[in-house]
Amino acid sequence: MGQPPLLLKGHATGNDFVLLPDPDARFDVTPAQVRALCDRRTGVGGDGLLRVVPTALCPEVSEQAPDAPWFMDYRNADGSTAEMCGNGIRLFARYLVDSGLAPPGAMTVATRGGPHLVVVPEAGDVTVALAPATGPLLRAMPVVSVGDRSWSATAVTCPNPHAVVFVESLDDAGDLLLAPLVAPESMFPAGANVEFVVRVAAGHVRMRVHERGVGETLSCGTGAVAVAWAARRADEAAEGRESPESFRVDVPGGTLWVTERADGTLELTGPAVVVAELRPSDPWWAALSLR
Amino acid sequence: MGQPPLLLKGHATGNDFVLLPDPDARFDVTPAQVRALCDRRTGVGGDGLLRVVPTALCPEVSEQAPDAPWFMDYRNADGSTAEMCGNGIRLFARYLVDSGLAPPGAMTVATRGGPHLVVVPEAGDVTVALAPATGPLLRAMPVVSVGDRSWSATAVTCPNPHAVVFVESLDDAGDLLLAPLVAPESMFPAGANVEFVVRVAAGHVRMRVHERGVGETLSCGTGAVAVAWAARRADEAAEGRESPESFRVDVPGGTLWVTERADGTLELTGPAVVVAELRPSDPWWAALSLR
Repeated sequence: MGQPPLLLKGHATGNDFVLLPDPDARFDVTPAQVRALCDRRTGVGGDGLLRVVPTALCPEVSEQAPDAPWFMDYRNADGSTAEMCGNGIRLFARYLVDSGLAPPGAMTVATRGGPHLVVVPEAGDVTVALAPATGPLLRAMPVVSVGDRSWSATAVTCPNPHAVVFVESLDDAGDLLLAPLVAPESMFPAGANVEFVVRVAAGHVRMRVHERGVGETLSCGTGAVAVAWAARRADEAAEGRESPESFRVDVPGGTLWVTERADGTLELTGPAVVVAELRPSDPWWAALSLR
Repeated sequence: MGQPPLLLKGHATGNDFVLLPDPDARFDVTPAQVRALCDRRTGVGGDGLLRVVPTALCPEVSEQAPDAPWFMDYRNADGSTAEMCGNGIRLFARYLVDSGLAPPGAMTVATRGGPHLVVVPEAGDVTVALAPATGPLLRAMPVVSVGDRSWSATAVTCPNPHAVVFVESLDDAGDLLLAPLVAPESMFPAGANVEFVVRVAAGHVRMRVHERGVGETLSCGTGAVAVAWAARRADEAAEGRESPESFRVDVPGGTLWVTERADGTLELTGPAVVVAELRPSDPWWAALSLR
């Protein structure tokens, strides 16, 4: 056995991830290994794992390879997979640029939710575009419940499933230790992220989120997009209410910006930073059995 | 500015720490910097910080230097200081051996609670001895309250302050999101860790702990010692109850062993592992302003 490989830790508005560079696609990461890596006490710690792997080496997404050389193999902290991660993909792209694997500028990244365009300047905020084809699809109104309170929600797919609830106060969601109930279950067979939102001003909202497979997080990128999309639709439905193209979305971990283009593309912009490169110790790596 | 220094992350029964090697005593770490380093989302993450610094270079403990070449400058995750940390010192000593700063075997480590003997084999469990002079001092009975429930507690200093409560079920402590109230406050002017304990069998207890300055943790080494000491005293007070010298103490993050020697020394034994060595990224390190 050689030296353990490098890992990285980073975050985007407090939504944090373990990065596992895997240029030879040699790591077949099990859910138990994802949980061990993401464990905040006994591992590296993160809301999820981002495996950085060449798209061409992954049969499940290799058809995206001509446009997107790198595949973001995203796993939730509990080991489950998700289609996309709006904060994760921004950190993923920041890592590609910082490490020299991709030049600064526009690039396409492969995900289970399809290829996504990301713009990464030499330094500063990173933007990801959610393609119209993977934009909001569901139009029915699910019901979200926390304890004995219930709200009518807006279902949004971008491309992972969200239920957006407008509330009077973010305290209404309680402590969010348990996942809110979303009914009917048939609308979200693979579960949903639930966003609770208050309006601050025109084009400015504040939110909390419960992510399936993770719990409450400090931020959720696709959730911020779903929230801005739902807020703009609600504005348009309300007589005479102003709805700018750009929404400021305050999350517990910072601020994100969502801009809707004329073609329906939703752009998510915000900070993403690699905190540290990690060299796992031999005993810990051996116990992880990731080889 | 040169390269950021290496940090390390490790844990002892799930009680986790950021290690900051500081051989030249050049880091004057502020409480805000401790909080940033220990932040689980935007930093490295840990229940506390262990600065590894030569004792002779630290006026506050330099009188311990002849016996203890290294000072464990321990800070809680909120930036406050503590006298000692029974899990932290075991990880600290494991790091000294793994990194070659000390040979395997017995060594003395300086702390704000005085010098402590630690035994570190080449591999495997690490033992720390709590010296009799810094053993249990308080004999009054404080009252611990969580919500509308209250219990009479045993106050133990070893050397940091603890209030040990025997309960019927560990669920009695509730979610421990807030610190339990300990009265009278005058008994613990600097606060106290609170342990909730159930008996499993003779010489075998199970506990949860709320640490001042941190919150509920998966383990607390000096807390396990305080619990074993209190359990043994209670055994001795109860007619005909067996009380072995060694107690198994199950904590949420694993198992610790506490042995009381004839001279009153309390030995704490359990695993301690360095998980990874970290090289902070330049942007994150610059934002931390630790130089």
